[in-house]
Order: sequence, then structure tokens, then C-alpha cells
Amino acid sequence: MTCENVSHLAQRVRHFVEQQVLPREAELGRCDAAAARLTAQLQAQAKAEGVFGNFYPVADGGRVASLVDYLTVAAEEGRSEFAPALLGCDATLDCHMLARHANPSLRERFYLPLVRGEQVPCYAMSEPDSIGSIPATLNSRAHWQGDHWQLTARKWFICRAERADFATVIARTDDGPLPSALSMLVVPCDSPGFRFVRPLALLGRQQGQGEVHLEAVRVQPDQVLGAPGQGLALMQQRLGLGRLLRAAHWLGLAQRCFDALCARVHSPRGAQARLADKQLVRARVYRSFREIASARGLLQDAAAKFDRGQANAIEVNLAKLAASEALSLTVDSAIQVMGAEGLSELSPLSGIYRGARTTHILDGTDDALISTLGRDLLEATQPGVAFDALAPSVHLHGKGAP
Amino acid sequence: MTCENVSHLAQRVRHFVEQQVLPREAELGRCDAAAARLTAQLQAQAKAEGVFGNFYPVADGGRVASLVDYLTVAAEEGRSEFAPALLGCDATLDCHMLARHANPSLRERFYLPLVRGEQVPCYAMSEPDSIGSIPATLNSRAHWQGDHWQLTARKWFICRAERADFATVIARTDDGPLPSALSMLVVPCDSPGFRFVRPLALLGRQQGQGEVHLEAVRVQPDQVLGAPGQGLALMQQRLGLGRLLRAAHWLGLAQRCFDALCARVHSPRGAQARLADKQLVRARVYRSFREIASARGLLQDAAAKFDRGQANAIEVNLAKLAASEALSLTVDSAIQVMGAEGLSELSPLSGIYRGARTTHILDGTDDALISTLGRDLLEATQPGVAFDALAPSVHLHGKGAP
Amino acid sequence: MTCENVSHLAQRVRHFVEQQVLPREAELGRCDAAAARLTAQLQAQAKAEGVFGNFYPVADGGRVASLVDYLTVAAEEGRSEFAPALLGCDATLDCHMLARHANPSLRERFYLPLVRGEQVPCYAMSEPDSIGSIPATLNSRAHWQGDHWQLTARKWFICRAERADFATVIARTDDGPLPSALSMLVVPCDSPGFRFVRPLALLGRQQGQGEVHLEAVRVQPDQVLGAPGQGLALMQQRLGLGRLLRAAHWLGLAQRCFDALCARVHSPRGAQARLADKQLVRARVYRSFREIASARGLLQDAAAKFDRGQANAIEVNLAKLAASEALSLTVDSAIQVMGAEGLSELSPLSGIYRGARTTHILDGTDDALISTLGRDLLEATQPGVAFDALAPSVHLHGKGAP
Amino acid sequence: MTCENVSHLAQRVRHFVEQQVLPREAELGRCDAAAARLTAQLQAQAKAEGVFGNFYPVADGGRVASLVDYLTVAAEEGRSEFAPALLGCDATLDCHMLARHANPSLRERFYLPLVRGEQVPCYAMSEPDSIGSIPATLNSRAHWQGDHWQLTARKWFICRAERADFATVIARTDDGPLPSALSMLVVPCDSPGFRFVRPLALLGRQQGQGEVHLEAVRVQPDQVLGAPGQGLALMQQRLGLGRLLRAAHWLGLAQRCFDALCARVHSPRGAQARLADKQLVRARVYRSFREIASARGLLQDAAAKFDRGQANAIEVNLAKLAASEALSLTVDSAIQVMGAEGLSELSPLSGIYRGARTTHILDGTDDALISTLGRDLLEATQPGVAFDALAPSVHLHGKGAP
Repeated sequence: MTCENVSHLAQRVRHFVEQQVLPREAELGRCDAAAARLTAQLQAQAKAEGVFGNFYPVADGGRVASLVDYLTVAAEEGRSEFAPALLGCDATLDCHMLARHANPSLRERFYLPLVRGEQVPCYAMSEPDSIGSIPATLNSRAHWQGDHWQLTARKWFICRAERADFATVIARTDDGPLPSALSMLVVPCDSPGFRFVRPLALLGRQQGQGEVHLEAVRVQPDQVLGAPGQGLALMQQRLGLGRLLRAAHWLGLAQRCFDALCARVHSPRGAQARLADKQLVRARVYRSFREIASARGLLQDAAAKFDRGQANAIEVNLAKLAASEALSLTVDSAIQVMGAEGLSELSPLSGIYRGARTTHILDGTDDALISTLGRDLLEATQPGVAFDALAPSVHLHGKGAP
Repeated sequence: MTCENVSHLAQRVRHFVEQQVLPREAELGRCDAAAARLTAQLQAQAKAEGVFGNFYPVADGGRVASLVDYLTVAAEEGRSEFAPALLGCDATLDCHMLARHANPSLRERFYLPLVRGEQVPCYAMSEPDSIGSIPATLNSRAHWQGDHWQLTARKWFICRAERADFATVIARTDDGPLPSALSMLVVPCDSPGFRFVRPLALLGRQQGQGEVHLEAVRVQPDQVLGAPGQGLALMQQRLGLGRLLRAAHWLGLAQRCFDALCARVHSPRGAQARLADKQLVRARVYRSFREIASARGLLQDAAAKFDRGQANAIEVNLAKLAASEALSLTVDSAIQVMGAEGLSELSPLSGIYRGARTTHILDGTDDALISTLGRDLLEATQPGVAFDALAPSVHLHGKGAP
Repeated sequence: MTCENVSHLAQRVRHFVEQQVLPREAELGRCDAAAARLTAQLQAQAKAEGVFGNFYPVADGGRVASLVDYLTVAAEEGRSEFAPALLGCDATLDCHMLARHANPSLRERFYLPLVRGEQVPCYAMSEPDSIGSIPATLNSRAHWQGDHWQLTARKWFICRAERADFATVIARTDDGPLPSALSMLVVPCDSPGFRFVRPLALLGRQQGQGEVHLEAVRVQPDQVLGAPGQGLALMQQRLGLGRLLRAAHWLGLAQRCFDALCARVHSPRGAQARLADKQLVRARVYRSFREIASARGLLQDAAAKFDRGQANAIEVNLAKLAASEALSLTVDSAIQVMGAEGLSELSPLSGIYRGARTTHILDGTDDALISTLGRDLLEATQPGVAFDALAPSVHLHGKGAP
Repeated sequence: MTCENVSHLAQRVRHFVEQQVLPREAELGRCDAAAARLTAQLQAQAKAEGVFGNFYPVADGGRVASLVDYLTVAAEEGRSEFAPALLGCDATLDCHMLARHANPSLRERFYLPLVRGEQVPCYAMSEPDSIGSIPATLNSRAHWQGDHWQLTARKWFICRAERADFATVIARTDDGPLPSALSMLVVPCDSPGFRFVRPLALLGRQQGQGEVHLEAVRVQPDQVLGAPGQGLALMQQRLGLGRLLRAAHWLGLAQRCFDALCARVHSPRGAQARLADKQLVRARVYRSFREIASARGLLQDAAAKFDRGQANAIEVNLAKLAASEALSLTVDSAIQVMGAEGLSELSPLSGIYRGARTTHILDGTDDALISTLGRDLLEATQPGVAFDALAPSVHLHGKGAP
């Protein structure tokens, strides 16, 4: 897609978000039946306006082929917490996983409805009795019964669990060493034995995530994504792209909070309090902007490597941590400048703040990522190892010097 | 009260909180009719067990005379977010303000029922169209009608507004310079013209705070606390003790979060993840403990000065900022170590985290306090000024070296 | 210059720095006569090897035309604190200022010798009795005597004052409003009345900087850079490019410290202490790398705008602050991991650490820049203002999407 | 000693430091022969004025018995970096170690001259080829020769190595497990085989510290401090008191930096720049004061436990880290507000800043202490363990409520 087109698409997305989504955030945040109806209506409208599924695989209707290009669009999609769901982004990751690894049956049954926006996917990995950062502690188990798998699993903190049509479930399918012991199974949520157990709010917000139990669910051989035993590799792949997609939306949200911070300073109340003259306010403006700009640069580096098909775990994790911090810091500063009003439902910041806090835990906790990053960087700097992330020139090369 | 007695009272409070309050926090947090009934029942029980109104004025039933002593008790009261309300602490500040400044009529009508735990007070200061840190921007107005005041005011973010029996309202009673222009008026919430307009949740938690409007409410001369025109001075006085009381409870809550953090490390899941060996976890444990211990020292200094009747604005604000940070940092670390579970309603941390965020805004925003503290410290260090907060020996003198 | 050539030049610079400079840093740091001789010898060698004056104006012998390209080269030049002086970089800024604004006489007398590496320039702005961030407080004064200026000035903390051949001096040449009151005067250091008063060490390092007094120095009309009264505008211009050039070298130095940090971990002593397994060490590695990568992105944005001739004060100041922090944080971590050895003259870190501290003050203190940045960002976000730094898409456009 | 007397002594020390030491810091910092003469002269004067060896054992001439009392005095001693040496404090730790553990011969030969101020001690622990935080890696070795030890050791970063009369050397005297393998040997520096190898500057400051080699030094059995094999236990004991004594002086130095920061704001230059109105300056004043006050509280807790003879490793390490940070942060802010002048030899801050940096490494690096503290706190919070550092009431009890 040409640069002009990406820019044009980004503007159309911005228009949709500003006109259709921002004014209805309070309604959408209620997560009741009316919100569900409004969601369906806005999704239909997004499809009609050609802003739905923008980063779905291009062969099947997506509009943007490269992740670097998509960042511009995602920055607009992310301005509202609710927009990604309305614009089909909740399914982008599953679309890419299925596009790459689905067999014909999965493709027909799950992938094609997904890119048409007809189904809601969810991803069932975390378990109540395992350690998130240690896949070896996963307890879910699929036993081979001669012609099918029998899957038993308890999974929690699953986004969209309450309304999903199918789940990608990680389970042990083999007793051997971990790299070949796990598999990804695609399971319809109305399968016998599949049960939504309870919703799980995050910081008081109930948005469909929850706990599911699978008891002796029958899974056919063709419901395996990729091949049996590829689960760990697919998890890594999914995590990488997943973190980049989320980080891209977080930066859009951070930018919105930055705008809200500045708008408050420029507002009549801000003028009355002379906020623009206060150095502590200026320092917040400066710091927020810097964190957003820095994270954007790191995210772009990671996306460029992704587009080139290069290993990019270091870049992905840096971008995830930086975007998460930029969002948290900016929404915190915006609230602080706004005062009690920013904590209340009179402002969208109240919800964004809570969402921002979850980004430090979901999809990899800060501590785990920091430890991993430090280890990876040390491995990359071992004597004799040539790792391009560390060559200063690479940074430039990735950015298109003539 | 002797040291042994304070210690004994603290133990009884701890027992009450552990036995009666902690197991019922989920119920109490719902803020519905059942929660209101449970609150009333537990208040009655607290009175029966002699742990209600511990820091009310000693002459009228309080158990602890000095603030330094009370800190030990407050650390136990504060372990649950819900305990202070159950133990009568919500009225402590109003009790002291009324005990000092109420005329016989206010004493009879509001103070005595308050110390008996029969009424719920609230404090109406913040306004939708004024700047919290600049009293000169307050718009509420009481006009003298010859024999009474006619009070018109819009006030918001008032704790307990929804269930209060009476409000202490700040309003302008004079057109002159601010130091003599404001007054504190004590107004029953069922006065004609007094209206609860709407609840205002904080980070999604609705706990009775909200907005009230007073339209042409009739206020008799004997409803003025202190004398007309003393409003600003009384606000400062109220702020000082109020911040200390809240900081004392926050440190109890921070200590509970610290306990939860350590307990998670020692739990089977913590052992499985070898959390105790992880330096990033250890650093969180260290930092949390240090912040709590530091804030406790600062709070004690401020309380000692309060007990001696010395000016203590610097110490109060330091203690408030430090306690607020200690709580925020500790609950954040506890959640981080606990993972998604800590964000959910499965853990009390989810609520505490949100409450902790409000401490940086309510009763004085961080930025305003920091600017004020810097200014006060610079004034205290001007050449020729002898200010005891800055003499290193004072710190020691306050702590009873033989 | 093509990308390959830039890359090739960067490699040659790296080779020169590694082979010729790093092994002699201890000698060079002594700042004695032997160091001066060694400096002269290495400069000659740099010229011979074609790595001297790389970013001098291309028309007069420079090798790189765009600042974006030069960043790659500067990252190599900056790896040693001593390399920029040896490679002629100390004069780059003066070269550009003179190339743009020198009249034929200045060009002949100062510019051409400068690009040939035959003269040492210095810049005399700061004064003992003025406020660095407030040009209006400058006291230096040039009085017009009918056919020449008589310049009287006290200037301090001037880099290279001790060995400079000429100085660019800021002085008031007019009593009117500041924007047209200041001028830049180019003054040979052997002018009658020009006196080097004393050296001024920075954190114990004496590297030629110091204080100079000018008493009734005669300055001819053709010694004015640009035109009389343009001083303030030229100062801004000089500051902008100057900050970018320094930031580019700081990042090279930060990268070297990062390499030293990792090398220590991989060393036998590091292995003995199992540093690679320690999360606190990993966190230092992660944080250092992230700060360097972030600053590099910000610097590149600023350089791209500079190359396009766009206003870029926000980007320049962000890049300066970020590079300064990246360097300080990285050298601090490297020392911390190395222990006492890192503080001693056994390690180059001891000097780099002290140099890093000065970056937060020289050329604009952190606080002044933060306040300025906050103000500039707020001005750029005023309703109705379109400022491209704030449009998320601009960031991408600047990086050459196809 | 009564409180009045401690306060009086502190005033006399303050007077001595202000009158005799502060005006001569530049001379004392030169570390040349003149400085040595001045040191001797001021030491004599300090003895004459009764402010020398204030915390030496009271039985042998010390003036203050409890560490809590001494903190007040130490806060004054520490205001100058040079005062502790002049007031005999450099020997305080050795005095206490010798007073407790010296046999009659050591007492006669080393202890009594030490308390008379006639000898300079040093402590030889760190080694070029061992890990500071892992005593098991120490390589120094004393072999038993039937009637004496033959000691071979390489030790570095030893304070006062250049001018010491005797050294306390840690060496392995046994091949067995560490707890009984190390011993403390007291060795005159003029022993045959004892050689000062080289000075080792810290951040460019050469103040007598350096490297020594001991080759086959003959050590008599009565030169063992305590008993052979007690080395590790004595090291811990020495570390504990040593950290507290140093932290006490650091806080005095931090207070002086705070005073310098405020004085700059109040100075004519500060007034010209309107520093008192700048929120970023106020924030620095606030933060510096808070860190000093917090560290003082933590230090006092640790000292109170020390005086009571209770285990206090947690408190000691908290106090050390907090005092180190308070000093670093305050001197950094003072320099930042002062600008380039603060970095130069025109200000004592330049030296203090460098000294402050070393406090994060000498006597235990931050990272090692943080990891240890986290581990100790986790051990103390294990289910079933009652550890008083964690009971909130203890903090109060230690502070003498009536």
C-alpha cells in the first residue's frame, strides 16, 4: 500500500473513531445488552465504511500489508479503548495465526468466518494453578483416544471468554520435553464439556473476560493448529505479533491521553489555575510526550524487523515495555492534572487508567520481560556473537536512509 | 494512656479487624443495602467490644489522648479499607473540629450524637467550577438575611455524601479578603434546598461519595463553626489533622499489602515460581518495606509536633506524601507479584490499588503539596530564620532520648 | 553520500578509534605537554587516514552531507571521550556557523584555517554574574567607537579556552530589546586585552576549559558574525546544531559503556560472581540498552528535521535530554557492576562518569530544558495550531516509508 | 550522657567544623605534604578542644556511650568530608573492634595508641581477584608455621593505606568451611614483606587509599583479633557498626548540601533567576529534605537496636542505602541548581558529589544489599516466624513513648 493510502486510511479510521466511537464510550463501557447491540451496529457500520479488519491478511480482505504501515492506522484505532473491538482488531492476531497454520478444515470452519467478522475468537492459555511465565507448569491435558483427543483444562483471565465462538487452547499432548509437548487446539465454545465458569473483572471492570473449564471435550485431529507438538513455537510466534499489535494500540491511547492532558491545560479551568505556567505540569507534558515518542521509535524498529521476517524478540519486548510505560505514565499525568474529575466516570481516563495497569501483567509481566530481555541482550553480546540489534548502524538501516 | 494500654488496644483492634472485617470485605465493598445492614451491625459490635471511636476526644469517650499513641492503633484500623468506617474513624476529624469550635447548640445537636456514633458527617469543600488548591476560587456563597444566612452552593466529590446526616460546608460569607471571607457552616442534609445530585464513582468504585447542591438553604447564626470569617483558618486546621489521620490508616493498609506480597512469595505458587530467589521480587520487598518504614518515621515526627501543639505543616505534608507513595508502591508491587489474580476481585488488592491512586489527589494533589512544601522549606531556611524542622537535633529530641 | 559509503566511513572511524585512541586514553587524559604532543600527532594521522572533519561542510572537505547520515559516523567518533577532539569534531559547530554566516574576511581569516584543522576555536557565552538560561542577564558589552567596537567581557566555563586560537564572543552591542541587542564577535585570543584568567576543572578534570577576561579589546566591524544584532538568533541556531552533535557523540560513548557493562558480565570475574544470572544486573542491561535505543530514535527524528530545514527545537531538546540520560544511566550501571575498580583510574568509566554528569548542565540545564520543552509542547497543542511534532503519522513519514 | 550534654557537644563540634575545617577544605583536599601538616595541626587542636574521638569507647576517653546519642554529634562531624579524619572518627570503628576483641598484647600495642590518636589504622579486606560480596572468593592466606603465621595477601581499595600504621587483614587461616576459616590479623605496616603498591584514586580523587601486597609477612599468634577462625563473624560485626557510623556522617554531609542548595536559592544570583518560584527547584528542595529526614529516621531505628544489642542487619542495611541515596540525591540537586560552578573546584560540591558516588559501592554495593535485604525480609516474614522489625508497633516502642 502506498504511503498516501495508508495515511488516507488512517484518516478515515480517525474520523470513524471520533464520530462514532468516542461519543459512545460511556454506553460501550457498560457491557450490558445495550452495549452488545451497539457494538454489533458499529461493527456493521465499520465494515460498510471500509475500516474493519484493516490488518487482516491482505489476501483475505485486509488493507495493509506491512506492520510498519499498519502502525499509523493502529495509532488511530487505539485512541478509544473500545475501537479495536469495533474495528475487528480483536481478531487480527487469530486471523494471522490461522492464515499461516490452519489446515483446510480449520480454514473453512474458523478462519473464513473470522475474516468476515462473523465470529469472536478467544485464546485460552493461563491457568489457575500454573505460573504464567513458565509453560512447563501448564496442567491442561489432551489425551489421545485413538481417533480424537480428549481435552481437560481449566483456563482463566481469558479475554472475550464470555462471548467467544471458539477458543484456541494450549494443552499438553505429549509427556516428553516441553518443546514438543504442547499443542494448540481450536475448540468451539459450544463443544460439550466446554463451560464458561465465571467472569473475572480487572480492577473492577467486567469486559467479558473470565474463566472456562473444559472437561473431557472431544477434539478432532483436524482441530490442531499447525501440527501436534508445535504448541510452544506457535505460542512464541503468537506472543511476538500479539505484543506488537497491542503496543500499537496502546500508543494511540497514550496519544489521546496526552491530548487530554494538554486540552485540560488549555481549558478555561486550566487557564484559571495557570497550569501552563507551572513547571510540574510542564514536566508532565514533556515526560509524557517523550515516553510516547520513544516507544513509537522502538515499536517501529520491531515492526520493521517483523516485516523483514527477522528474529525480533528483543525489539518486541522492548516495544511492549516502553508502550506500556508510556501509556501508564501519560494517563496517570492526565488524571493528576485533571484532579478528582479524572478519577470519576465523568472522564474516560478513569477506565483507561485501569486498562493501562493491566498492560504490565497481561501477555507477560514486566519483571519476566525485563529478566528475559537482560538475558537475551547478554547472550547477544557474548564475545564472538554478531547480533544486529546491538550494531548502532542497524537502527539507521532500518529507517530507510537513501 | 500508658504504652501497655495502647498496645493492648491495638491488639484488640487487630483482632476485630481480622475476625470481623477481613472476611467480609467482599460483601462490604458492594455498597448495597446488605452492605449497609452489615455496616450497622459491625459498628454496633465494635461499640460493644470497645474499639469504636478510639481517637475521639478523650473527654467524650475516646480511648487515646495523643496522636503519637494513636498511630499504633490506627495502623491496625487501617489494615482493611472498610474498618475505619466500621470503627467510627470516619467521624474522628469532625469530632475534633466540633469539640474545639462548636458552640453549645452545635455541640448538643451534632457533636454529642456524633461521638455516640449516631450520625454520619460529611465535609463539603470542592466545587465543580473552582480550583481545589486555590480557595479564592470557591463560588459557594452565604448571604446574610438579617437573622440567618441563605446558602447557595454546588459541592462535589464529597465522601459519604449519599448517607450523611449533616455537612460542614465551606462558603464565602463576606466579600472582603480571603482570610476573613470564608466560614464553615454546619448544615443538616435534610434541610430544605439541600439535594444529593448524583453519585461519583472513583476508578469505578461507588462508595457513597457524590455531588450535592444547596439552593437557598436557610442557615441559622448558631450553625457557624467557630466564628464567621474563620473558615480559612479552620480549613487549614482540619486539613492538617485530616491528612495525618488518613496517612496513619494508609500505612496500616500498606503494611497489609506488604504482608500479602510476602505471603504470596511464601505460598505454594510462589515457591513453584521460586519467587524468593528472584532479585526483582526481593527488590520489591525491600523497596516496599523501606517506604513504609520511612513514612512511618515521618508520620511519627508530624504526630509528635501535633501533640506538642507546634506548627507542623511541613511535617504533615511530608508524611501525607510519603504515606501515599508507600501505599501506592506496595500495593502495586503486591499486584505485580500476584499477577492477573491481583487485578481481579479474587484479591482485595484490586480495590486497594484503586483507593491508593485517589490518595494522590484527594485532600491535596501531589503537585500542589510538593510546590507548597518546597516553598515552606525555602522560607524556613531563609537567612536569619530559625526553624526547628531543619535542625538535625530536633529529630532526636522529639524521640525521647533520656 | 550513499549508505554504503557512510557505513564504510563509520567502519574506518571505528578502526581508528579502536586502534589509535582507546589504547592511549590514559595518556590523553593527563592534559600535560605529552598529551598535547600526542593529540597533534593523532590529529595528523586522522587527517592522513581521511577520518578528520567528517561533518565539516562538504564544499570544504567534509565527507557527510546530511546529519542523519552523520549520526552513524558520530556514534563511532564518540566511543572515546578523546576522539572527537582528535578527529576535528571540536570545530564542526564553528565550521558550520562560519560557513553560513562569515563575511569574506572572517572566511579567509578563521574559517579556512579551521576546516584545514589549523586552528582551535572556542565559544564564550557564560558569564560569572549572569544566569545561563536568561540571555537578558548577560553583561558583556561592546561599545561602538566610530570605526570599531571596544569589547569588555568576563566569560567562564569555556571549553578549550586554554588552547584556543580564537573565540566567538557573545556581547551586547545595543541597548535596545534583546532580539536585536546581542552580537557574535569573532576575536583572536592573542588580541590585546584578551586574557586567560584561570582554568576551571569539572569534577576534578582539567581539560583546558576556563575563564577569560576581555578588557577593552578592539574588534573591527568585519569581525561580526552575521550582522550586528543577530546574536540571539545565531545563539539559538548554534545551540540547536550543537546539542545534536554532542548528543550524537554521547550515544557513541553510552554504547561503549554498554559494551563495557556486558563485557564485565562475560569476563572471568563476572562469571565467578554469576552476574549473568542476577536479575538486578539483567535489569541494568535492559534499561541501559533501552535508553540508548530510545535516545537514538529521538536523535534521528531531530536530525531528519534538521536536514529538511524544519523547525526542530522540540526534537533537539528531547534528543539532548534523552542522550544525556542514556549516557549517565549506562555509565552508572557499568560502574556499579564493576565495583570499586570502575571508580578508579584503572577504568575509563571513572572519567566518562564525570563527563556524563556535566552533560546535564552544560549547554542548557535539565530543568531549563524541561520547562522549555513543556512550554513549547503546550504551545504546539493549543487549539487551532497544527504542529507536526504531534501528529503521530509524521513520525512515520520522517522515516521513509515507501 | 544526658541529652543536654550531647546537644552541647554537638554544638562544640559544629563550631569546630565551621571555624576550623570548612575554611580549609580546599587545602585539605590537596592531599599533599601541606595538607598532612594541616591535618596534624587540626587533630591536635581538636584534642585540645575536647572534640576528638567522641565515640571512642567511653572507658578510654570517648564522650558518648550510646549510638543514638552519637548520631547528633556525627551529624555535625559529617558536615565536612574532611572533619571525620580530623576528629579521630577514622579510628572509631577499629577502636570498638579492638576494645571488644583485642587480647592484652593487641590492646597495649595498638588499641591504646589508637584511642590516644597516635596511630592511623586501615582495614584490608577487598582483593583484586575476589568478589567483594562473596567472602568465599578471598584468596589471602596465612599458613601456620608452628609458632607463627606466614601471611600472603593482595588487598586493594584500602582507605588510608598510604599513611596507615597498622592494618587489620582478613585472611584464610584454615581450609575448612568458611564460617571458621577466616581470621582477622593485626599487622603493622612496617612489617617485613608489607608493601604499599600503588595509590588508587576514586573518581579522580586521591586521598590515600590504595593497594598493598603482603608477601610472607610474619604474624605472631597474639596478632589475631578475637580467635583464629572468628574472621567471618567479626567481619559481619565490623560491617554493621561501620555502615552505621558512615551513614551518620553522610547525613551530616547531606544536610550541608541541603543548606547549600537553599542558600543558593536565597543568594543574589538565585533571586535574580527567581529560583524560589520555580517548581522544579522547589521539588528538588522537597525531595532532598524528605530523603534526609527519612534516612535519619531509619538510621535512628538501627542505632536504637544496636544500643539494645539486638540483631539489626535489616535496619543497618536500610539505613546505609537510605543515607547513601539521600546524600547522592541532595548533592546532585545542589549542583544542578548551582550550575557549572557546582561542578568546579569553586564549590565543595564537586568533591562531595564524587564521594557520594562511592558510597553506593564501598562497604557493600547497592545491588548486593538490596538482594540481601529482600532475602532477609522474606525470611523474617515466613509463616511462623516472629520478627520484630515487621511489627508496626515495634517502631513506636523503640522511640520511647512514655
